[in-house]
Amino acid sequence: MLKRLLPRDSNFFDLFDKQINYAIEAASHFRETVGRGAVDDVSLQRMHDIEHLGDGIAHDIIERLNKTFITPFDREDIHTLTVQIDDIIDMIYTIMNRVKVYKVDRPDKNLIEFAAVIHQSVQSVGRAVNGMRDLKHSKIITDACVEVNRLENVGDAMRDDTLGELLDGAHDPIYVIKWKEIYQDAETVLDICEDVAHVVSSILVKHT
Amino acid sequence: MLKRLLPRDSNFFDLFDKQINYAIEAASHFRETVGRGAVDDVSLQRMHDIEHLGDGIAHDIIERLNKTFITPFDREDIHTLTVQIDDIIDMIYTIMNRVKVYKVDRPDKNLIEFAAVIHQSVQSVGRAVNGMRDLKHSKIITDACVEVNRLENVGDAMRDDTLGELLDGAHDPIYVIKWKEIYQDAETVLDICEDVAHVVSSILVKHT
Amino acid sequence: MLKRLLPRDSNFFDLFDKQINYAIEAASHFRETVGRGAVDDVSLQRMHDIEHLGDGIAHDIIERLNKTFITPFDREDIHTLTVQIDDIIDMIYTIMNRVKVYKVDRPDKNLIEFAAVIHQSVQSVGRAVNGMRDLKHSKIITDACVEVNRLENVGDAMRDDTLGELLDGAHDPIYVIKWKEIYQDAETVLDICEDVAHVVSSILVKHT
Repeated sequence: MLKRLLPRDSNFFDLFDKQINYAIEAASHFRETVGRGAVDDVSLQRMHDIEHLGDGIAHDIIERLNKTFITPFDREDIHTLTVQIDDIIDMIYTIMNRVKVYKVDRPDKNLIEFAAVIHQSVQSVGRAVNGMRDLKHSKIITDACVEVNRLENVGDAMRDDTLGELLDGAHDPIYVIKWKEIYQDAETVLDICEDVAHVVSSILVKHT
Repeated sequence: MLKRLLPRDSNFFDLFDKQINYAIEAASHFRETVGRGAVDDVSLQRMHDIEHLGDGIAHDIIERLNKTFITPFDREDIHTLTVQIDDIIDMIYTIMNRVKVYKVDRPDKNLIEFAAVIHQSVQSVGRAVNGMRDLKHSKIITDACVEVNRLENVGDAMRDDTLGELLDGAHDPIYVIKWKEIYQDAETVLDICEDVAHVVSSILVKHT
Repeated sequence: MLKRLLPRDSNFFDLFDKQINYAIEAASHFRETVGRGAVDDVSLQRMHDIEHLGDGIAHDIIERLNKTFITPFDREDIHTLTVQIDDIIDMIYTIMNRVKVYKVDRPDKNLIEFAAVIHQSVQSVGRAVNGMRDLKHSKIITDACVEVNRLENVGDAMRDDTLGELLDGAHDPIYVIKWKEIYQDAETVLDICEDVAHVVSSILVKHT
């Protein structure tokens, strides 16, 4: 009986690994595109495809959750995790779409820096999520979560510096409106990463 | 025993039908007002009244939820549904209030178009919500949900086109600040409609 | 057995009292600072410390929740309450940080007025939260919740007047961008206070 149940459980981990891999792919593609400074139809379509694939996994996780009686950890935590990882991908897609719609498509050193921090943070979230398979080796998880928190603080400081400079009166208001939203959204990605790290930490606390 | 319970359950459907009818009324009143291009005290007060009546039903649903042991579907789904339908009405009220506060009260072709799509989407949400009484005839629900998703995509494209044009540098910054917020809020209504459709879809999946 | 459980339960009330006290301290410090019209490093650091202490209590509440089998009221309500009180403190901190980053640091009569209403609202939320220890004397709670709702309406009207004036075309766009965000965030604090009041009201309904 137990043996029949265990493989079902392990599938949740497989699905989370797949979902977080799409988030890492989104962050990596975002970083690359932003580095080139141009969001063309091809690179936006590719982000859209990643977002769509990630969405599919999120639906699989929630459908499995609705049909599974025994889950490897609290149902609510599974639900929250998958929604938040989906939010990471959605927000990265949103930013990339804005860069295209607002036609601010040349390399911007602040956005390049944000994209690098986002990429690092999503990779750290990935280590925390992968680590959930084996809650006994918790140091991997806690180290990853500490790093995600650190990067969120880095992002806060970057946002404050960037907005302070952006709003100092030297820039055109339309330019300010566009970039203020993009930078704030970029910082929001790091906030969501921190939310995911909090959920993984709390799962660790409950099971050890 | 079963007979005593069933009428209680059916009341949830009655309440949801009432609540979604207020959302449809809000969307219809919004479309009419926006078409005339002026939000005066009378039309805003009428929207406020609709919002207040919808709020009353939302409270009834949550109170009944807290006092009912057996519910027609998951308690959490009932809670989420009523909160999200309430969010639809609130957001339409918020937009109408902004149009008045920002004194942008003349017919705007983009907002008229958004109001038409919102009206269609909320009506489709209504068909999905009404359909929950009879989960066996699921085609009505799935068709309605497909339509809500389609309209959300239509809204995304409208928002991108509208913001792209609004931020192309030809408009006064204050004008941009006002309309950017209004158009983004309009698109948010369609996002919330899609959230409701997702919940109704997941209820369908669980019960069939 | 019951005696062993009761002290555990009462700890939730102690923790909520502590958490809401930090929210009141944040609102009071915000009001003072805004009255002086300058957010310097010292006053921002002090707000950061309050936010950090409040965060600690929120974590204590959630950890206790995860380890306690019998709780004085619904687990979900405890979770929502602590998250929302944390949101009050976070949002006050965010506003204070923005005032500093945007260098709009001179006394502003609208923000002073908002800070006074926020302070009153958080104090009323405090009376509602303290009142949960003794749900039989419910008048204290209902009076406090009525007051929180009243102040939310006051805040709505203040926001409409302030934004209407701010966006009338007489102000510099960059000035408008900064203050619009600050005033809207200030009104959001009152919205969150109302959310807390709703949760406390619903706890009262369930237990009487």
